[in-house]
Amino acid sequence: MFSPIKNTKVYEQVIEQIKDMINQGTLNKGDKLPSERDLVEQLQVSRASIREALRALEVIGLIECRQGEGNYIKSSFQDNLFEPLSIMFMLEGISPENILEFRKILEVEASGLAAKSITEEQLKELKEIMERFEKCEVEEINAAIDKEFHYKIAEFSDNVLIYNILRSVSILLDDFIKDTRKLIINDQGNKKELFSQHKKIYLAIEEHGSDAARKAMREHLDYTSKYTK
Amino acid sequence: MFSPIKNTKVYEQVIEQIKDMINQGTLNKGDKLPSERDLVEQLQVSRASIREALRALEVIGLIECRQGEGNYIKSSFQDNLFEPLSIMFMLEGISPENILEFRKILEVEASGLAAKSITEEQLKELKEIMERFEKCEVEEINAAIDKEFHYKIAEFSDNVLIYNILRSVSILLDDFIKDTRKLIINDQGNKKELFSQHKKIYLAIEEHGSDAARKAMREHLDYTSKYTK
Repeated sequence: MFSPIKNTKVYEQVIEQIKDMINQGTLNKGDKLPSERDLVEQLQVSRASIREALRALEVIGLIECRQGEGNYIKSSFQDNLFEPLSIMFMLEGISPENILEFRKILEVEASGLAAKSITEEQLKELKEIMERFEKCEVEEINAAIDKEFHYKIAEFSDNVLIYNILRSVSILLDDFIKDTRKLIINDQGNKKELFSQHKKIYLAIEEHGSDAARKAMREHLDYTSKYTK
Repeated sequence: MFSPIKNTKVYEQVIEQIKDMINQGTLNKGDKLPSERDLVEQLQVSRASIREALRALEVIGLIECRQGEGNYIKSSFQDNLFEPLSIMFMLEGISPENILEFRKILEVEASGLAAKSITEEQLKELKEIMERFEKCEVEEINAAIDKEFHYKIAEFSDNVLIYNILRSVSILLDDFIKDTRKLIINDQGNKKELFSQHKKIYLAIEEHGSDAARKAMREHLDYTSKYTK
């Protein structure tokens, strides 16, 4: 189990030990961590250091502190685990071209993979999104549906890395999708075009045509890129 | 500037405000944060909450606390900013197939982009890596050079997202590269083959042949994947 800690930056070492236990499979999703008091005893560091480490892991989104119950490894990582990356990219000053290029790389492949591996159940979900997309007249909602469509395809690629990494930079991507849509929709005639591009992607995936799905997604993002600069 | 904070999870709100300031460009890489005392005054929260927030940002790798000098937004993000993602993927139990698929997607494109945009200076660096690769007889060092080669290409793709995201899952990728190399190298005859695959990628990039570079990288990773399962 845990072993006593010797060095200076104590909270880092506490985190390191928890990380190792996760890596070794000793700690798993949803598991309860030892109590603060037990951690103090096992690691032989101050309660303050334990608290610092736990708080930091909470901020990172890796554990959750349930009032009166203790600390748990999260069982789902939908939310804030990934934000550090987005913040870093903000600081690095990522260009829209870089973002679009990155989206193209991941999403074109994700479409191809989704076409291959999508289940009947997932197809229904995607179809339902397309139906809402077709009916909706409110641009703000449409922008949200647009986003949902793209994330769903990444999710259905059946590669957890692709989906989670897209999500990990979602603050960047979301702003980007919203801004670009606004520019495209400026010309009302483009709205139909935008819908039909999404429809084409959907149909290719429905027919399990990987190449066609890749091509349709690439054409859609190429079209988008004309409005990026 | 900063504004007073009202609600419950105080440290989260402190972080949120710092994040907003980064997003708005008020805080930039290398900038000094207000002192703890100033933050207490401006945000009207306890010193403990400020400390929790700062410590968490330090763990995330976003700020550094310089002894006696104060807190600074980091000016470089080479190290630990990204680890949360790797930990999350450990917990999610990523398969080697998923990792290889992801590497293929990013690295094949990165090679194509690098072939297009690589500078003379960068080419020299890559060449120097190849020379070390060719000469070295120690497998452990070769494995490190192998890794270096792949990361350099991602770096030279000239897309910060590609490079940093590869790095953000480096714990996963590094183990993976090491394990796979071991399996391949089990048959000593494969060592030459592995080197010549890297050489082919290098030559394509040197000749600025994007398609050739993509193809060579894809072939290399396809070869690798035979040893993955």
